[in-house]
Amino acid sequence: MNPQDLIRKKRDGGKLLPEEISAFVRGVSNNTWADYQISALVMAMFINGLNLSEQNALTKAMLNSGEVFNFSELDAPIADKHSTGGVGDKTSLLIAPIVAACGIAVPMISGRGLGHTGGTLDKLESIPGYNVNLSKEEFKKVIKKCGFAMMGQTAEIVPADKKIYALRDATATIESIPLIVASIMSKKMAEGLDALVLDVKTGTGAFMQRESDARKLAKALVKTGNAFDVKTEALLTDMNQPLGKYVGNAFEVFECVKLLQGETDKQSQSTLDLSIELAARMLILCGVAKTIQSSKFKVQSVLESGEALEKFRENIEAQDGDSRICDKPELLLNKSLLEVKIKSPESGYISEIDASEIGKAISAIGGGRLKVDDKIDTAVGFACEKKLGEKVKEHEPLGTLFCRTETQAAKVLAKLQMAYKVSVEKPVRKFELIKEVI
Amino acid sequence: MNPQDLIRKKRDGGKLLPEEISAFVRGVSNNTWADYQISALVMAMFINGLNLSEQNALTKAMLNSGEVFNFSELDAPIADKHSTGGVGDKTSLLIAPIVAACGIAVPMISGRGLGHTGGTLDKLESIPGYNVNLSKEEFKKVIKKCGFAMMGQTAEIVPADKKIYALRDATATIESIPLIVASIMSKKMAEGLDALVLDVKTGTGAFMQRESDARKLAKALVKTGNAFDVKTEALLTDMNQPLGKYVGNAFEVFECVKLLQGETDKQSQSTLDLSIELAARMLILCGVAKTIQSSKFKVQSVLESGEALEKFRENIEAQDGDSRICDKPELLLNKSLLEVKIKSPESGYISEIDASEIGKAISAIGGGRLKVDDKIDTAVGFACEKKLGEKVKEHEPLGTLFCRTETQAAKVLAKLQMAYKVSVEKPVRKFELIKEVI
Repeated sequence: MNPQDLIRKKRDGGKLLPEEISAFVRGVSNNTWADYQISALVMAMFINGLNLSEQNALTKAMLNSGEVFNFSELDAPIADKHSTGGVGDKTSLLIAPIVAACGIAVPMISGRGLGHTGGTLDKLESIPGYNVNLSKEEFKKVIKKCGFAMMGQTAEIVPADKKIYALRDATATIESIPLIVASIMSKKMAEGLDALVLDVKTGTGAFMQRESDARKLAKALVKTGNAFDVKTEALLTDMNQPLGKYVGNAFEVFECVKLLQGETDKQSQSTLDLSIELAARMLILCGVAKTIQSSKFKVQSVLESGEALEKFRENIEAQDGDSRICDKPELLLNKSLLEVKIKSPESGYISEIDASEIGKAISAIGGGRLKVDDKIDTAVGFACEKKLGEKVKEHEPLGTLFCRTETQAAKVLAKLQMAYKVSVEKPVRKFELIKEVI
Repeated sequence: MNPQDLIRKKRDGGKLLPEEISAFVRGVSNNTWADYQISALVMAMFINGLNLSEQNALTKAMLNSGEVFNFSELDAPIADKHSTGGVGDKTSLLIAPIVAACGIAVPMISGRGLGHTGGTLDKLESIPGYNVNLSKEEFKKVIKKCGFAMMGQTAEIVPADKKIYALRDATATIESIPLIVASIMSKKMAEGLDALVLDVKTGTGAFMQRESDARKLAKALVKTGNAFDVKTEALLTDMNQPLGKYVGNAFEVFECVKLLQGETDKQSQSTLDLSIELAARMLILCGVAKTIQSSKFKVQSVLESGEALEKFRENIEAQDGDSRICDKPELLLNKSLLEVKIKSPESGYISEIDASEIGKAISAIGGGRLKVDDKIDTAVGFACEKKLGEKVKEHEPLGTLFCRTETQAAKVLAKLQMAYKVSVEKPVRKFELIKEVI
């Protein structure tokens, strides 16, 4: 099966057979397909689409291009959560210890931030000593010990995805539902899961800004998950403002530890609410709880009892991090940072927040990546003081920027201010965190 | 203007602006676009199409990526002919000397054979000593001396085309009219022409097998030529059987010299007819003749007077070839070749000939190229004994294969025989050589 024949078939709108898709992915893995042939086929797939059976075949072929974990020895349900990415999206840090405290094993293979979005691995690395580079054996050992482990993608897991994703990034072929599904689901399936909850974000800080696109993606992800016999559910959630209070790696871990300690404040509430919802869904899919009420009650109880915080502490210790942050989360914060207030130019109500602009501002001062190999400053960040629908007076702070230098502040101040829209009228629009369960 | 933005625009069906197309071609030429980005955009162009202004902008940008000839010092009209390629298509070897004998300068930059089709440069190289690797200055000098010169593509002429074409070949994006137009016309425009006649072939031995596709291509080529102020005309011609008698490099030159000497036979007639038609069209476009009748009369007169043969002799001498072949064309032929007759399995009429199978058979025994860098055996070939519509008796020869070894013969004999269909009924279909003037 030569590359040209497969490319020609998809170019002309044909449906690729599973064995043709396998041949493609094999060609990617063993370098018999040239990069320009991969990108030509991917563009043809982008424009002419893939139907559900092609999408599943691509997911399967990519999954089989690498190692697949098997945790059957653990004698526990295996579950994970995946988010399509957002700004201030830190729920993994709460969900993993909560769900582990409820007796579910969570083999969380996470990513790093890119562009305006953050990544769990970067957040974890703001904990002094925390090691995300585990071997397969270490990963299993940590899960066995404390119920969850968090590591980065290895070269052995879905190697085809890494190459295809890099080419998609360079050739403007990211925003294709079947390609996104295959990329996400092949990596998640490689974790050997029983259940998966997806947090598909939509809004100004999400990759899928339009709700209709995000809904389509959510449905496609769920279909493919279930086709692989993994109980899969998706929540369509709001990303029209940063989630919770903080944006920035150390600050986000700080927020989570505070929540695990039982301390909430107004701006962190959405982080807690979404984490509880997602965790409760995981419990139900794993058969640990039956109704959403009883499931949430169980989640609340492991939070209130401190069991979830203890799980986090055990994990940090198992992954060589400094677990003192569990008692003193302020250890995470760099006290020497400049604090610059972003002030409202007028009185009124917050009617719009461009979350991606806030994410980009933090990336621009080193808190995120513009390119894949950029180094990160985990200390810098942003605190939301006002969120959508809230009343604000002229000159009252919308948020606080934590940065290293005046130059950094000058670079992003105007952008941060422009990210907010204040209207005189109280907005009638409802800002729902959870829009739909799919 | 970054590659992703341009790719995204065409991916989504947008129209690219001339400056965007220039940026792309510049990126190809200066290697700032990666091959996988070029191939992604080309696939998007293939599927979503280019309108006439994009097609012209691409042609112009490609033309401007390299050197453009200027023959204004010659004080003669400058014209060329281009064929989309076929089997036994040798008209360039007749047209160039004919037209030069009529006072028109012909700067013919030709190609090599690939797949089932032949190339003028390979044919010329069957003339002992003939040099197609001229410098720009030598090329001009030869034209000045004898009215025409024939050389290969240089690295300086439309360099972007070479890279894009190789990628199109590897990514199944050849058969796109705007991409074909830009590739052909940018190279022809680089010759600094006043007039161009295109021979667009359709049928079993053509790249565009379907007549409707070939007609579309012809129209698109003519539109773009005229947009560049080059008087352009296209003939839609039949390639449902090899043109003329012979297929194979030395044999084709032999056929042409015989025709220039005034010797025709039944099977060579179509070579002569098409060459006269194309040459006459060039004369008209250049203002050297007014009507097609008077133009053909002029062409006939330079053939009959021997002036065309003399031009060919002068050119061969100027390009270091052995001009004795003009008097003794049999010097071109290798007398030690095996002659194998392809016999008709039954009596009837020739109703179909798969010309591409004949071309492929000759390529397979070394007379053409399967890959771009294959070496060629210019001696081998095929003579058509019967053509479409002719009556044939059982065991009567359909053609003769001239090859080096019995193994070669065994390799292609069945294929050659299968290329012919014989029907008992006399075919009612008319086999027109020239289908339309566009």
